[in-house]
Amino acid sequence: MSTTDIPVDNGVNVEALLGVREALGDTPDIAQFQWRATTEWVRGTHSQSSVETFYGFGEEQQHKTTFRYDADHPLAFAAEDNGVTPVEYVLVALGSCLTAGAASIAQQRNIQLRSVTATVEAAMDLHGILGADPDVRNGFSSIKVSFQIDADASQADLEALIAQSQKRSAVYDVLTNPTNISVTVN
Amino acid sequence: MSTTDIPVDNGVNVEALLGVREALGDTPDIAQFQWRATTEWVRGTHSQSSVETFYGFGEEQQHKTTFRYDADHPLAFAAEDNGVTPVEYVLVALGSCLTAGAASIAQQRNIQLRSVTATVEAAMDLHGILGADPDVRNGFSSIKVSFQIDADASQADLEALIAQSQKRSAVYDVLTNPTNISVTVN
Repeated sequence: MSTTDIPVDNGVNVEALLGVREALGDTPDIAQFQWRATTEWVRGTHSQSSVETFYGFGEEQQHKTTFRYDADHPLAFAAEDNGVTPVEYVLVALGSCLTAGAASIAQQRNIQLRSVTATVEAAMDLHGILGADPDVRNGFSSIKVSFQIDADASQADLEALIAQSQKRSAVYDVLTNPTNISVTVN
Repeated sequence: MSTTDIPVDNGVNVEALLGVREALGDTPDIAQFQWRATTEWVRGTHSQSSVETFYGFGEEQQHKTTFRYDADHPLAFAAEDNGVTPVEYVLVALGSCLTAGAASIAQQRNIQLRSVTATVEAAMDLHGILGADPDVRNGFSSIKVSFQIDADASQADLEALIAQSQKRSAVYDVLTNPTNISVTVN
């Protein structure tokens, strides 16, 4: 039995995802999602956010459990480092989105993955958030993602895989294009 | 003793932050930061990201511990829900960034906070990430943040507080303005 006879299994149910895309033709409303998080201030720059429910596929949905995330500033900022900084959560979001996409697309392209590691690095000039220079933005000046992939595929195929993951990534889109945010105080 | 005699304490060391801003004048290089996360694929859409080190204030910095974050897709996507989705991590980042900012600015403005809750909701049309409609973006169509604040301050003062937090927020900037991302496969 040659390696090509072993079915590729990256653990992604591609048929189910293609089934959803198919179903959208008849019931486009099921594609309207609302994602949610609730952040409670603890003290200082420390907060705890909870993620539990979302809306989608036409009804209220619930995660298996309530996921909780502490955020804080580090000791070097005279804070307590009770969790990573908000900007580091953005990097977690980007790395995990591109990686999940890579696994899904690899499954569809019959590429068996053995390991995938994404190293995410983001540059920031603190003159922005500290209000020290109005010409410096608050956010990242740039972000760099480096993938190390062990898989049964050529370098060209892996580059095409990651390019397609970028093309379909929600977080990549959210970071490279502007989104309207409304903020209210009740 | 009237309430105005009790010093405001939101747990933020504003003097230290202002000291950093002051120091930037002489040593602007200390403001150059690099934030990092490493994402390891587990199986399917499940990954685990680690956040441990960053660079800033002119040297390598380390969190108190290695923080680890599982991300996955929910059961409704035929996945295992081993953690929240990448896009929900973006909402955690936004809620925690605006909340930390609110606490810091309240301290500077002499506003005693008792409780702060930010509810973050983001709309998304799945036609985008599923590749079902090229005119629909992959990311959020819009984000709404609602603050509930209990504090010794007028509604107008609280609205000004949150407006200033938006103005100085790294994550708010990152989501409302585009950032350049380079992705490579090594």
